[in-house]
Amino acid sequence: MADEKKQGFVEHITPRDVDFAQWYTDVILKSELVDYAPVRGCMVIRPYGFAIWERIKEALDRRFKANGHENVYMPMLIPESLLLKEAEHVEGFAPEVAWVTQGGGEKLQERLAVRPTSETIFCAMYSKWVGSWRDLPMKYNQWCSVMRWEKSTRPFLRTSEFLWQEGHTIHATPEEAQEETMQMLDIYREVAEDELAMPVLVGRKSDKEKFAGARATYSMEAMMQDGKALQAGTSHNFGTNFAEAYDIQYLSKEGKLTYVHETSWGVSTRLIGAIIMTHGDERGLKLPPHIAPIQVVIVPVAAHKGGVMEKCAEVSDQLKAAGIRVKLDDRDTLSPGFKFNDWELKGVPVRVEIGPRDLEKGQCVVFRRDTYEKQAVALSELSAALPVLLEDIQKNLYALADQFRQSRIREVHNMEELTQAVNGGFARAMWCGERACEDAIKEQTGATSRNMPFDQTPMGDTCVCCGRKAKHLIYFSKAY
Amino acid sequence: MADEKKQGFVEHITPRDVDFAQWYTDVILKSELVDYAPVRGCMVIRPYGFAIWERIKEALDRRFKANGHENVYMPMLIPESLLLKEAEHVEGFAPEVAWVTQGGGEKLQERLAVRPTSETIFCAMYSKWVGSWRDLPMKYNQWCSVMRWEKSTRPFLRTSEFLWQEGHTIHATPEEAQEETMQMLDIYREVAEDELAMPVLVGRKSDKEKFAGARATYSMEAMMQDGKALQAGTSHNFGTNFAEAYDIQYLSKEGKLTYVHETSWGVSTRLIGAIIMTHGDERGLKLPPHIAPIQVVIVPVAAHKGGVMEKCAEVSDQLKAAGIRVKLDDRDTLSPGFKFNDWELKGVPVRVEIGPRDLEKGQCVVFRRDTYEKQAVALSELSAALPVLLEDIQKNLYALADQFRQSRIREVHNMEELTQAVNGGFARAMWCGERACEDAIKEQTGATSRNMPFDQTPMGDTCVCCGRKAKHLIYFSKAY
Repeated sequence: MADEKKQGFVEHITPRDVDFAQWYTDVILKSELVDYAPVRGCMVIRPYGFAIWERIKEALDRRFKANGHENVYMPMLIPESLLLKEAEHVEGFAPEVAWVTQGGGEKLQERLAVRPTSETIFCAMYSKWVGSWRDLPMKYNQWCSVMRWEKSTRPFLRTSEFLWQEGHTIHATPEEAQEETMQMLDIYREVAEDELAMPVLVGRKSDKEKFAGARATYSMEAMMQDGKALQAGTSHNFGTNFAEAYDIQYLSKEGKLTYVHETSWGVSTRLIGAIIMTHGDERGLKLPPHIAPIQVVIVPVAAHKGGVMEKCAEVSDQLKAAGIRVKLDDRDTLSPGFKFNDWELKGVPVRVEIGPRDLEKGQCVVFRRDTYEKQAVALSELSAALPVLLEDIQKNLYALADQFRQSRIREVHNMEELTQAVNGGFARAMWCGERACEDAIKEQTGATSRNMPFDQTPMGDTCVCCGRKAKHLIYFSKAY
Repeated sequence: MADEKKQGFVEHITPRDVDFAQWYTDVILKSELVDYAPVRGCMVIRPYGFAIWERIKEALDRRFKANGHENVYMPMLIPESLLLKEAEHVEGFAPEVAWVTQGGGEKLQERLAVRPTSETIFCAMYSKWVGSWRDLPMKYNQWCSVMRWEKSTRPFLRTSEFLWQEGHTIHATPEEAQEETMQMLDIYREVAEDELAMPVLVGRKSDKEKFAGARATYSMEAMMQDGKALQAGTSHNFGTNFAEAYDIQYLSKEGKLTYVHETSWGVSTRLIGAIIMTHGDERGLKLPPHIAPIQVVIVPVAAHKGGVMEKCAEVSDQLKAAGIRVKLDDRDTLSPGFKFNDWELKGVPVRVEIGPRDLEKGQCVVFRRDTYEKQAVALSELSAALPVLLEDIQKNLYALADQFRQSRIREVHNMEELTQAVNGGFARAMWCGERACEDAIKEQTGATSRNMPFDQTPMGDTCVCCGRKAKHLIYFSKAY
């Protein structure tokens, strides 16, 4: 299989409008982002996929640290008794837990959960570490893998194990905790928009959809090309909910024992799935330049002709020196045409072609993956032109995604309109706030509530479902 | 406890010569590198400890990538049947495995091991990915946590879970695999010496001490201040051992199915333990500037006096701009004396003190943690002087450790000398190569063979233990 490919077979990708799910699977496997592992529900992240994750991680980690967060590492095993302390939280996660019951050749006295998330262990440690108001806030984050048992496997979207970051912070006042919750949501939005070129809707989740144990959950929701929503990041305000269950108290300035206010927030390798389904096309991936592991690929044409390879290597060095992530494809057993397809499949934003005739003219051909446009560029101007082009591609990818999304969001006022809207898009609706209506909408249309935007300017007075007095503006859609 | 500390109590550290193990525990807990977790055998890595790990990681990862290695992520759970394929490997790890037996509310049909190491899963994937000689080499690495069930807990040295990197590579020829094995050992040595300021002995392990399933294991061994060895990194050549068990074959240029040659290599958070026990003293940590999260701390003296805090902030900005990792200790409830102790405990290489009298003279006081020396430096020269000073401290820490190590390595020719030498140091000896002698030495002295240096210039003809013909020059010592 690997050998066939190297001999020049072009990979076949199912068109998006034939079968979107199959298109996704074709793209992630053929572009070599991931592979299935010989472990049920688990994925292997291959070098190209992991390199994307490293760039996302870097973009987030830099912002976390700039805002005073520090990284830590907590154990991956959590004793059952510790997990059981916050009732709502346990109920939410218990069905998904993988349990270690044997260790070192012996049956354990207590089952240990492979962390599905780490609130409980962060709480246990915060309870130990916090003394007085002087110790607050504590703003910690960890990068790790978590395990949530799944029946099916969709790499990056739904797997038993995935990689993520989880921030956990404690604060003296409810105001500070809320500010933190909002700040982290905003950092997620910024990274989604500026780095992943992915427009998102931010807002508050309904009580039904909030995190198990949170007072309030906020999310960012992105629209995939099939019109479904992908929850791409969440930020939770726990209030004193966990602090009371895990006894996290500090001595206030007034000498009074007081519960801390806590937040948590996370994004995961799901973001890679979001990038694929936001930007990809029939040829494969389209990576935003900011997070593309390779921003520019150089493909020699008639590489055996005098001077071509030398010039390609020289240009490669120049671009590298200009801070561009460049790759020279010097594989000698493959045709330029095969290489073109291969790098388009892998979503490299820009391709530079250099052949003997280009050399004569002192130029090269520059191809941009987002629009398929080709143009000749003087070699002497390439180092200056490419950073500008890459920024243009970054912006264009965002604009295209935003345009698509706008065209698929509909204001709806009754169930008939809602049903139509969520068939390939989002419905923007007024809602009474009752769980019963959310349940009814889910049952009738398959759509769930996504979030309530911060701008709550009403679209009307009545609930889209029950017709009674509306309380909230909210989005509904089918979701991943 | 946290509050007591903040009010100015100086932490008490057990002196090294009273109880080295207790000194170690005091230092890691009081400097807030780690804490014990409410999970048997596991540690929590706190921000200051994790920041050291991030710097070590960065130093290694940069070198891995420069040598053509790519990062990936493999699942943390390994089915028992997959683990069982290579007999020697299983035998080595089975007693230490933690098993997941329940998931998603059900008993699993097959036990899943929490990875103790990932050879088996890398092999399964390589077998799937490799087609022809054109696909080779594949040089992958992953950063993750692994689990090896332990009865006792010594943070960074011996815990059930720890963080590490594991490189796994496959090659077409035995020569390439051996070259890779040696190259990675050399990268480890370079990082130990140049970044951690820690001299190491590199060489080949005996068959008794090699990795379960390896044809040959190479290690770097560092000497701690109690004269014991700490194995600080290993690099293994598997030959075709795993390739045969997991069927990893490629089609050679001649069209013949051929087994790949494989290597693996790893270092872990143990390196943090090594840094502590190589450089630390009665006041606490001494961190080499290259990996110190904070290289320079600025402590204002009489901070309330006019202009002091402003100048400190200005100097802090200047040093930051000069690329120095600087922290301004502006805590207003603590005395300068307390802060001095606190940052010495935390091993910050350089302290800058600025008070009103310094301001008058346009200078500051610079304290170096390695020698306790203080000197006045003109503020105008500080940005230029500190990088030089930091490099000097880095070199001095290495020189001190090397001097200590040289003084504790003894050439020995009989069991009496060996017994004396390994009581607080390393024995350099000739050995017949027989397991029986290694076992006898272990039983009589508690020392194990460390490794056989590449320079095998003999010290004599006879085995230090049995007196028969010697084959190898080798180091023995007690070890962590």
